[in-house]
Amino acid sequence: MEKVTMEKLTAVCKQYGFIYQGSEIYGGLSNTWDYGPLGVELKNNIKKAWWKKFVEEQKNIYGLDAAILMNPNVWVASGHVSSFSDPLIDCKKCKTRHRADKLIEDFTEGKETGDGWDNTKLEKFISDNKIKCPKCGSSDYTPIRQFNLLFETHIGVTEENENKVYLRGETCQGIFTNFKNVERSMRAKVPFGIGQIGKSFRNEITPGNFIFRTREFEQMELEFFCKPGTDLKWHDYFRSYCMDFLKLIGLKEENLRYRDHTKEELAFYSKATTDIEYNYPMGFGELWGIADRTDYDLKTHMEHSKEDLRYLDPETNEKYIPYVIEPSVGVDRLLLAVLTESYKEETLEDGTTREVMSFHPFLAPFKVAVLPLVKKFHSEKALEIYENLNKEFMCTYDETGNIGKRYRREDVAGTPYCLTVDDETLNNGTVTIRDRDTMEQITLKIEDVSDYIKDKLKI
Amino acid sequence: MEKVTMEKLTAVCKQYGFIYQGSEIYGGLSNTWDYGPLGVELKNNIKKAWWKKFVEEQKNIYGLDAAILMNPNVWVASGHVSSFSDPLIDCKKCKTRHRADKLIEDFTEGKETGDGWDNTKLEKFISDNKIKCPKCGSSDYTPIRQFNLLFETHIGVTEENENKVYLRGETCQGIFTNFKNVERSMRAKVPFGIGQIGKSFRNEITPGNFIFRTREFEQMELEFFCKPGTDLKWHDYFRSYCMDFLKLIGLKEENLRYRDHTKEELAFYSKATTDIEYNYPMGFGELWGIADRTDYDLKTHMEHSKEDLRYLDPETNEKYIPYVIEPSVGVDRLLLAVLTESYKEETLEDGTTREVMSFHPFLAPFKVAVLPLVKKFHSEKALEIYENLNKEFMCTYDETGNIGKRYRREDVAGTPYCLTVDDETLNNGTVTIRDRDTMEQITLKIEDVSDYIKDKLKI
Repeated sequence: MEKVTMEKLTAVCKQYGFIYQGSEIYGGLSNTWDYGPLGVELKNNIKKAWWKKFVEEQKNIYGLDAAILMNPNVWVASGHVSSFSDPLIDCKKCKTRHRADKLIEDFTEGKETGDGWDNTKLEKFISDNKIKCPKCGSSDYTPIRQFNLLFETHIGVTEENENKVYLRGETCQGIFTNFKNVERSMRAKVPFGIGQIGKSFRNEITPGNFIFRTREFEQMELEFFCKPGTDLKWHDYFRSYCMDFLKLIGLKEENLRYRDHTKEELAFYSKATTDIEYNYPMGFGELWGIADRTDYDLKTHMEHSKEDLRYLDPETNEKYIPYVIEPSVGVDRLLLAVLTESYKEETLEDGTTREVMSFHPFLAPFKVAVLPLVKKFHSEKALEIYENLNKEFMCTYDETGNIGKRYRREDVAGTPYCLTVDDETLNNGTVTIRDRDTMEQITLKIEDVSDYIKDKLKI
Repeated sequence: MEKVTMEKLTAVCKQYGFIYQGSEIYGGLSNTWDYGPLGVELKNNIKKAWWKKFVEEQKNIYGLDAAILMNPNVWVASGHVSSFSDPLIDCKKCKTRHRADKLIEDFTEGKETGDGWDNTKLEKFISDNKIKCPKCGSSDYTPIRQFNLLFETHIGVTEENENKVYLRGETCQGIFTNFKNVERSMRAKVPFGIGQIGKSFRNEITPGNFIFRTREFEQMELEFFCKPGTDLKWHDYFRSYCMDFLKLIGLKEENLRYRDHTKEELAFYSKATTDIEYNYPMGFGELWGIADRTDYDLKTHMEHSKEDLRYLDPETNEKYIPYVIEPSVGVDRLLLAVLTESYKEETLEDGTTREVMSFHPFLAPFKVAVLPLVKKFHSEKALEIYENLNKEFMCTYDETGNIGKRYRREDVAGTPYCLTVDDETLNNGTVTIRDRDTMEQITLKIEDVSDYIKDKLKI
């Protein structure tokens, strides 16, 4: 099957209520996106799936929801204030601003990413290869300068420097600063993890590819604290666990791959980092990063805050700074992967085509569409069934247009089951349930529908 | 029963993992708070309850999740750039900065709020009543000046004015700007509503009272669009619906009251506004605002964006700008109400005291605590039961300390049911279920536990 293009996906998302351009009636705002009625359900279900598998079902993983605004010293300690920046290069001719590493990545079609290169190396590669400005074709650039990605704002009534705060650039710092709070209040024993879902902000120079890279985005981060020496084992564990999760929610193996970072790419504090990449419309790109960050984060926060962040092992009486494994995935990016995987245009036997979003039922915005076959005769009963079912899971109700058209609408909304109410329902108390993917129908008693659907929702 | 104090509540929240001071290891950041493992579950459950009752179960209400960063013209149109401000007054003697209306409210013990007063009236009242500076006791103030509450930041690589954007001051603007998108893509018919949960930011001069007023906070807003003339009926409807919701999730009638805004207080565009107030530790204060905003928002956005935001009534072929009813409640504030309502210190028969959080089971972080009576003999079976149950709802497992101590820990975590595994479990397959509030125990077969609990979770 041909892969969907980003243009097509963006248009489908807008048309059917998944994702709209942000502030659209005012001409938008550079690469911001709003999730519509179907998009917000899909997004919430993705978050629910992650929370279930990474927090709820894990005896030794705790949830957290830290504030977006943090004491600015957090970002000094983490190194973001001094070095969370992108290499910025301007075309001298047309004045367009580029990310130097992005120029190289596009030029080499992804073979070189420029990750971990210093400015000299980046500049040399661009000049050696005479990389052209994608806008005007010239290859005359300014030197590279570093541009900090943290958004700044001011708290309180004056715009003095002392009031400067940042919008968090990553959710994990809220986890590190609360390590001791969680350990103490939950009486947690290493190894244990802290998981968090929340918005982060990065003033990206070149956001793009729909919701793949946006300045405002949502992260699902787990920091798993373990004893030094056991870290590579845990890195390996989460490398598999994350991949299994992706398959569980419906991504196909052929569209997923591991990319282990080379020694050169690794951050200086990291012992191992693996990306799980997904085959997006524009090709393979990062989906999930699983990093062994050693004791770097807790150590730097301990130094800067002067608080003792060491863990006292109750069995050995040993004090140490735990190592941390960080599986970090973007909600929006995972949602883009799910959309890419799920969207299909199919030609039917009668020559017509149908659009389908083949979401896993757990992720689908609506689990069931309740459809009276003929409005006049069946809508009363259908509404009664709808009212009962929607107390248990998200349902939709549609009585307008012929049944074929209504099936098409539910197909592209990704509704896994259509429940049709007809004369049989009135006479025998049965309904037909149509499967979105196979388009086959089965007959069920009304009272059995709820359990039938609930069973399909399990992950 | 004596009402809990804010100091006590704050301490309990920190101790048991509900809420920590934000950025605590760095000395905090003025009135930011982080939700710990129990707090995030409670918060998520409050959001789930709202979403279920205001979006999921409503055939004509749609969800949305719009971006925090919006085109700045949105805030020009909404009036926030010109007039979303607080009246700021400085004590000339000690230089402390106050909100003029807050000075008056505190001075009159809530009898006058200063809402809707202009600067002249505020200044006159302060001077006529010789209101003293709460810090130094002087009553010599500067004139009032208006301080804008929108947080500013810059998008892109230069700090020019044209790049200035705001952190949204309220979630509802994302709803208004998407009114047409939702109507079109969901084929929605007036009356219909759009609900949204999300963070908003206000640079408050005097945040405080724990999580009652914070600069970063989360809103649950519904905008319900209806035909002009039907608006007061819908205002009335939601006035009751919101109150019923609060009682449903466990707030007591005696701690809730309506406060209808007087004509003087009403915003110039509003036909009616009602606050539902709750009896917080510091006294009655706003919890939920239900406003009839007429066609003000859509009309101003239509004027500023030049987009036609009118609705074409398919039955009458009439075009009109819908009126809107806005029930708007803060997640953090509702959570504070739930904590206030739920926390109790009880003296038991044996003279000891216990702390309890008597949350509605739907809201409780953990639904069940699985406790082996004796670790050595019962933990294997207990773990097996725990692993099965936590696939269905959030559970906790505790095998340390005597059973009485473990009950106490679960009481203050608000866990409604403790499931104890003992010899009877091994021999007969039964467990005891202890009710948090009555402390009474019943015996159930293992296989009946799940349904028993699920039934209690219903709202």
